Amino acid sequence: MLIVAERINAARKPIREALERKDVALLLEEAKKQEAAGAHFLDVNAGTEAEEEIANLPWLVELLQEEVAIPLCLDTANDQALERALAVYKKKEVMINSFTAEPHRIAGVLPLAKAYGAYVVGLAMGTGGIPESVADRLRLVEQLVRAASDYGIPEERLFIDPLVVPIGTDQRQGRVFLETLKEIKEEFPGVRTICGLSNISFGMPNRRLLNRTFLALCAGYGLDAAIIDPLDRELMSVLYAALALLGQDEFCMNYIAAYRAGKLCP
Amino acid sequence: MLIVAERINAARKPIREALERKDVALLLEEAKKQEAAGAHFLDVNAGTEAEEEIANLPWLVELLQEEVAIPLCLDTANDQALERALAVYKKKEVMINSFTAEPHRIAGVLPLAKAYGAYVVGLAMGTGGIPESVADRLRLVEQLVRAASDYGIPEERLFIDPLVVPIGTDQRQGRVFLETLKEIKEEFPGVRTICGLSNISFGMPNRRLLNRTFLALCAGYGLDAAIIDPLDRELMSVLYAALALLGQDEFCMNYIAAYRAGKLCP
Repeated sequence: MLIVAERINAARKPIREALERKDVALLLEEAKKQEAAGAHFLDVNAGTEAEEEIANLPWLVELLQEEVAIPLCLDTANDQALERALAVYKKKEVMINSFTAEPHRIAGVLPLAKAYGAYVVGLAMGTGGIPESVADRLRLVEQLVRAASDYGIPEERLFIDPLVVPIGTDQRQGRVFLETLKEIKEEFPGVRTICGLSNISFGMPNRRLLNRTFLALCAGYGLDAAIIDPLDRELMSVLYAALALLGQDEFCMNYIAAYRAGKLCP
Repeated sequence: MLIVAERINAARKPIREALERKDVALLLEEAKKQEAAGAHFLDVNAGTEAEEEIANLPWLVELLQEEVAIPLCLDTANDQALERALAVYKKKEVMINSFTAEPHRIAGVLPLAKAYGAYVVGLAMGTGGIPESVADRLRLVEQLVRAASDYGIPEERLFIDPLVVPIGTDQRQGRVFLETLKEIKEEFPGVRTICGLSNISFGMPNRRLLNRTFLALCAGYGLDAAIIDPLDRELMSVLYAALALLGQDEFCMNYIAAYRAGKLCP
């Protein structure tokens, strides 16, 4: 499973403050620690205020791409910030997170994804928000897949995020997510799946337990990539264990290496 | 998910010793603690030496049935021990663990299961041992289901154990187990599934992490009952979380109650 490291996100107060005072040391440390912990992509989110984001996202890209070997995942809903960030990005691989089934998001993101040969994340939401049922989500997934194809983006560059809705607001939503995942794997075998986890536990007590248990369930249903904090030892322990149990870790070598390195919880 | 509490098993040294010296206090404490922790059945295993088992299993049944409200699960491969234990058993519900697809096990166990109206666990193994592939296990499951039906045991009283084989000896076996589980649910929707967990991690480091992650995966694939230690706080935390995430815990009430009672790991 691909790990997209989530900690450099301006929604987190330490990152927001580090961006404000251009605290290069803190940001680089966050990046390097996540790379060392096994991340495959480094998610970069520079906030949601347009002007700041348009300035900060390219700045972060220039800063981070020199210092980490893994590719970046540009996490923005602002086309202008995305365009400027891509313009200064020098590595071969890049991920764009994200577009939706809304026409203006498709038209804003997919031409850039095509031009830069980027991986791109499509969210299963449209003008009407996030649908409640599996069937309605799949209809949106179909639109996302068709849109990517229309823009000449090969299937293997598309990641679909079925979108996690809190079980605290609707207890069926964990199951809806997993069933959607299963259906996507069956109907679009060439497309990969991705998600963030923490929304599942919003409003519930003991969120980290729910999040890491959900990660195991998602792995069992074939999730290809997860946007997670690779410094969360309990979470990573569950991921190592799940991949070994699911036959996705040859001879359980990664699990055993993680154990020997003292990375696993008992 | 039904919890079959596994601690009263003579394979565990404290229990073996307690049986030898007829330490009623220790055995009752083990029983009551497991009942209090939420067990639905109390597994009772009096060892594998024929003479001792034939004496100890009925003794344990007489001792325990008076002191716990939950039904017992008679865990034996000895027909004589089983028959004597059933003869002294007074409660309405009882589970027999287990028979196999071997003719002498079918002929030894199923008439007793029928006579006592017991739930009965069928293991997916035959004269050739445990098959490696999903298809071969399913052939055995079919034999188990047919045998139960032949003896007039209703489907809802049959539990199938697909049998856990260590990933340390064959890394595909976690996946084989889960796929077998899925196929059983599809082909025999009226039959329930059960398993013990700990064999999955045999020979691997950090076994408890693997076991509890496997429990989450099994829950995701629809496992109906698990033979586990309900006093294992980490394991039970994962189970509460998984059931809430899978929509099997109405309004997440059990999860929240467990949290409020201080039962959940952070």
